[in-house]
Amino acid sequence: MESEQPHVEDQISLSKYSKRVILETILGRPDGGVGLIGRRIVVGGWVNRPASSEKEPAVQAPEAVGPKDVSCVEVLQSRLPFFRSIIKVFGGDHHRMRDKLDTIIPKPPQPSISILQISDGSCVSSLRVLVDSALASPSHVMPTGTCILAEGIVQKPLLQDKEIIELKAEKIVHVGLVDQDRYPLSKKRLPLELLRDSTHFRPRTTTVASVMRIRNALTQATNTFFHENRFLYVQVPIITTTDSQGSSEIFQVTTLLAKQKADDQSAATDDFEELASQLEAKQKQKSGKNSVQTDKVNFSEDFFSCKTYLTVSGRLHLESYASALGNVYSFGPRFRANKFDSKKFLAEMWMVELEMAFSELELIVTGPFEKISYTEAVETLKQVTERKFETKVEWGVSLSEEHESYLTEEIYKKPLIIYNHPKELKPFNIRLNDDGKTAAAFDVIVPKVGALIRGSQSEERINMLSTRIKELGLEKKQYEWYLDLRKHGSVRCCGFSFLFDPLVLYATGLNDVRDAVPFPRSFGKANN
Amino acid sequence: MESEQPHVEDQISLSKYSKRVILETILGRPDGGVGLIGRRIVVGGWVNRPASSEKEPAVQAPEAVGPKDVSCVEVLQSRLPFFRSIIKVFGGDHHRMRDKLDTIIPKPPQPSISILQISDGSCVSSLRVLVDSALASPSHVMPTGTCILAEGIVQKPLLQDKEIIELKAEKIVHVGLVDQDRYPLSKKRLPLELLRDSTHFRPRTTTVASVMRIRNALTQATNTFFHENRFLYVQVPIITTTDSQGSSEIFQVTTLLAKQKADDQSAATDDFEELASQLEAKQKQKSGKNSVQTDKVNFSEDFFSCKTYLTVSGRLHLESYASALGNVYSFGPRFRANKFDSKKFLAEMWMVELEMAFSELELIVTGPFEKISYTEAVETLKQVTERKFETKVEWGVSLSEEHESYLTEEIYKKPLIIYNHPKELKPFNIRLNDDGKTAAAFDVIVPKVGALIRGSQSEERINMLSTRIKELGLEKKQYEWYLDLRKHGSVRCCGFSFLFDPLVLYATGLNDVRDAVPFPRSFGKANN
Repeated sequence: MESEQPHVEDQISLSKYSKRVILETILGRPDGGVGLIGRRIVVGGWVNRPASSEKEPAVQAPEAVGPKDVSCVEVLQSRLPFFRSIIKVFGGDHHRMRDKLDTIIPKPPQPSISILQISDGSCVSSLRVLVDSALASPSHVMPTGTCILAEGIVQKPLLQDKEIIELKAEKIVHVGLVDQDRYPLSKKRLPLELLRDSTHFRPRTTTVASVMRIRNALTQATNTFFHENRFLYVQVPIITTTDSQGSSEIFQVTTLLAKQKADDQSAATDDFEELASQLEAKQKQKSGKNSVQTDKVNFSEDFFSCKTYLTVSGRLHLESYASALGNVYSFGPRFRANKFDSKKFLAEMWMVELEMAFSELELIVTGPFEKISYTEAVETLKQVTERKFETKVEWGVSLSEEHESYLTEEIYKKPLIIYNHPKELKPFNIRLNDDGKTAAAFDVIVPKVGALIRGSQSEERINMLSTRIKELGLEKKQYEWYLDLRKHGSVRCCGFSFLFDPLVLYATGLNDVRDAVPFPRSFGKANN
Repeated sequence: MESEQPHVEDQISLSKYSKRVILETILGRPDGGVGLIGRRIVVGGWVNRPASSEKEPAVQAPEAVGPKDVSCVEVLQSRLPFFRSIIKVFGGDHHRMRDKLDTIIPKPPQPSISILQISDGSCVSSLRVLVDSALASPSHVMPTGTCILAEGIVQKPLLQDKEIIELKAEKIVHVGLVDQDRYPLSKKRLPLELLRDSTHFRPRTTTVASVMRIRNALTQATNTFFHENRFLYVQVPIITTTDSQGSSEIFQVTTLLAKQKADDQSAATDDFEELASQLEAKQKQKSGKNSVQTDKVNFSEDFFSCKTYLTVSGRLHLESYASALGNVYSFGPRFRANKFDSKKFLAEMWMVELEMAFSELELIVTGPFEKISYTEAVETLKQVTERKFETKVEWGVSLSEEHESYLTEEIYKKPLIIYNHPKELKPFNIRLNDDGKTAAAFDVIVPKVGALIRGSQSEERINMLSTRIKELGLEKKQYEWYLDLRKHGSVRCCGFSFLFDPLVLYATGLNDVRDAVPFPRSFGKANN
């Protein structure tokens, strides 16, 4: 960049919506901001933990500071001889510099300059800001996490170190204090596991802020990719009556148990009484045989007059749009009430799903990845002797996370496509292969991440679909709308879903998906 | 476009993922596809209802066809003299043309050409495809909604009419039949209200397909806008423990009532018994005073060990990210269990929300729209005599849809910003104005659409926030994480949420938001 643009204009990119200059537009310039020296700007951000110390820098008497507990102010003072010589070289506003030196050299009464590194989340880099104690008390502005909005002049650093520019504050517009005793990030650098208890603060750490910028870039790239490839975005419903995978790990959506305001006791009572009477009816029916029918009666009083769930997958709905618009995709939250604790899967995850009309699976399963059939995968795993798996490998049983990891990390050591799974392991609408046993599906397994993509070709033969619905004991009525797509202008359709959150895990090299998601939700854990 | 690119290359844009050519890449060319004449291509799509008829074209004996019931085949036959003369002019493959004429002129045995208009959803235009009965029976391929994948040669139309090119099919790769008696779109053009009962088919109509393409364009434009303006995308959680607006119109998420598979009766019983015993405990407590405490105990056995809801608004969560990354936005589904039937609001709607750190409301409420305070709005409406409102206008009461419509459609006749609402009408976290009565909020009301945008400045003073939480009788524990943001490095933050679905309504000129949403969900209505 620098060679392409040797003469940087001293233009400042103001945010359209505030006078604040976003730090990335200064620090991310090819010249690192040097072209802006002398300019007056407004910056905002949060005070970083000083790089030289794991402890909070407090304003202390110099003699109380040990060599390891050195604060920012200390660093400046210890370099004073060098500092003085630089100022001599600069010349210029000598009188003012002299004043500043006087304020830094500790003597009673003790005016001082707080030297802060502030970040505003727009980039990894931070800006050094010098705040005279006449503008704001060091004890107010120096604690890690303090919010500052400051107007000042960009200048060449008074201290010669890695910084290229710094801001000399002339006006402090806003200070958001920190209660140091209670602020979790005041303490020394927290590991990611502990940060998970403070999901509302952790984006203020360099690691999580970086993860979120990567997440943002991947989100935009995902949308751009599909847009450029002429896929239309369809917002599939989150609340659905269709349990697309016949899963029991599903969240129910209801207003029957609705939260009632404290001042609305009578309504609360009504709702609970209603539910109680439904339960009574249910219990009476238990002695009878047809309890599924009873469920229907129970939920006829619910908001949608029927049972509704949080969607596990939007692919059935997406297919209805593929059967009209051709290539479509969706990108949104999907839900699974999975109680299994996993570093790879959460109860709420963002998923990219796509459906392509007029396509067959052969066209998708081509690519540079290693490809093995489910049957081959099972045979390979059965021959493994040097590792004891917790769950037994057997044809017809799902490969577990440990099986998939072993294949991709230990045996193939690269991403792996496993295709043609037993039909019993896949949803009712996946196309049955000619062997009558396996379904036209594939999973892409990625080292460290696990199953990132699950793809399949939809069953276009309506009699096969009906048979599968019967075999799986699904309630046919729920799927009539989907069967309709086969009865009228059926098209061969392929698609896949890919979990966005593990993609972020993969791109960042993190180990736990909880650190890749803004507010993770998993069994027993929903903080806010 | 045409003037810029007079010589169109005869390149075909193949989809990366199938041999099918997307119609928009042919019909949307500056030359309308003329440059492709003579090329062999594969196209796929669904058969349109013939423009000349509201009825399904069936293969009929010509004598049975009345002048108004004219079918596509009929149209061709009625223009045969002209057709013959064109062929003479063309010359070329005379012998083959002669054969074709023979097949079209009805005589026993009756080979014929089905003339179809097919759409693949990529654009409004359709392509004419000629299918010889030797390739596929007219009764199979002609019904509206039939799916066809055909390989053929692009040719100049044999009939001179509005079409610029047509495809002479040489191979029919796939036909998806239609059960005409049951296919709702077989019947004459359905009004949008009736199409709502067939959400899975309606994207096959020109209107809804167009709406969905506009929706897609608006979605992409929204993301591009924020990306270009350096807002970071944050996926806020859908499942939340925080009822951000203290609303009683909220959906609860639970696994306590989880759907059980028919073969899993005992587990179902357990769950219901558990719930029943919780209700019993609840009923015992009803005689006591602290029923809110009881609720907590009840839901400790739920998936997240507490009560969880579908998010009404992501702005509180977004603010936590604005307090670290600066300018952030989110775009996703939000939920409100509103039983009020409305053409403008649904139970599940997509919303764009943004938060800007270091901003105050003054910076946002500038623009070309008319601006009035809530108090002025109430005074204006009170003076209205020519219209009787269903709900009385009174200071301190929410303006209803009819009030807002009247102001924007009848009085101001343009989009309108109403600001400074009584604090009681806004969530606990909106900044209290200096008058102590109103909150720093604004709504943007748009003719025909209603409240499109709701914006506000967050309360940065923690004592004010605590007071508001107490005044509203909210459970403070639920908001501790949010109060934390004020205790540690608080920043002035503004933002707004804007409903995406009414924006589509506005852009398309439709009257009912149900027609602008792929699968609408409203009180009592969730089809799939």
